[in-house]
Amino acid sequence: MSDLSVVAEPGRQDIVMTRTFDAPRDVVFRAMTDPALLPKWWGLRETETVVDRFDFRSQGNWRIVERDADGQEYGFHGVIHDVSAPESYTQTFEFEGMPGHVLMETHRLEEVDGGTRYTSTAVFQSVEDRDGMLASGMETGAGQSMDQLEELVRSLV
Amino acid sequence: MSDLSVVAEPGRQDIVMTRTFDAPRDVVFRAMTDPALLPKWWGLRETETVVDRFDFRSQGNWRIVERDADGQEYGFHGVIHDVSAPESYTQTFEFEGMPGHVLMETHRLEEVDGGTRYTSTAVFQSVEDRDGMLASGMETGAGQSMDQLEELVRSLV
Repeated sequence: MSDLSVVAEPGRQDIVMTRTFDAPRDVVFRAMTDPALLPKWWGLRETETVVDRFDFRSQGNWRIVERDADGQEYGFHGVIHDVSAPESYTQTFEFEGMPGHVLMETHRLEEVDGGTRYTSTAVFQSVEDRDGMLASGMETGAGQSMDQLEELVRSLV
Repeated sequence: MSDLSVVAEPGRQDIVMTRTFDAPRDVVFRAMTDPALLPKWWGLRETETVVDRFDFRSQGNWRIVERDADGQEYGFHGVIHDVSAPESYTQTFEFEGMPGHVLMETHRLEEVDGGTRYTSTAVFQSVEDRDGMLASGMETGAGQSMDQLEELVRSLV
């Protein structure tokens, strides 16, 4: 059962998301960061995820495209600031449909009894940008991604 | 005379800095982003600024070292997310003395009567990180950097 928590306190500029996965930390880290595995969990269930590039190293860059049933494409890209495998990485993130609105995400994985605790902190350039992301249905999308990631990591152990 | 403004509202995660420069926008942009010119304004007056690398393009990376009178070195590095010359660029920033604390800065330049208006928005992973940066004397350092930048751009026009 998912224990997903998405916290966005009023007036702040961040969204903090936590979830526990039933798999060892190195498996979760690999599933999150291996470009061959990303299409299996990233994005909504009904869209196809295409990894255009994902150079997963400190100072590498990435671009992912979501393609819906009508063939409409939605691009996302960013830069990876730091990688400390298998504990954490920090990256920037921009939806190409809203150029100039950039957020920075830090993903952390901790070993806990029986699995791995994931914490993502996304920080936005303004409160308005953050609230816009919430209004766009980010919570539903993140929930679907996290459920697909849980299915993936279970299949890998 | 400097019109530097540094705003950090309570409970928020950002610092917004503005200043007007008495020079055309393209000159200010070049002074801010040309690795050959960076040592002339970046950092404190009493330190020497050494550009280790500064690959100024979208998805490039940078590292700058400040060296004080005793030869002590302080490293800073990050990744450039997007460049829209001469209007704006977004980058990450990490002081190597506090690894794991990353901020994201967006720098914007606007043409105004008689010069250029600069706005920098730095967003931090937490309110505590932001307040720590303020407590470290960031305002003094930024003021010195901006004054040196003003001297530089005046010499370039």
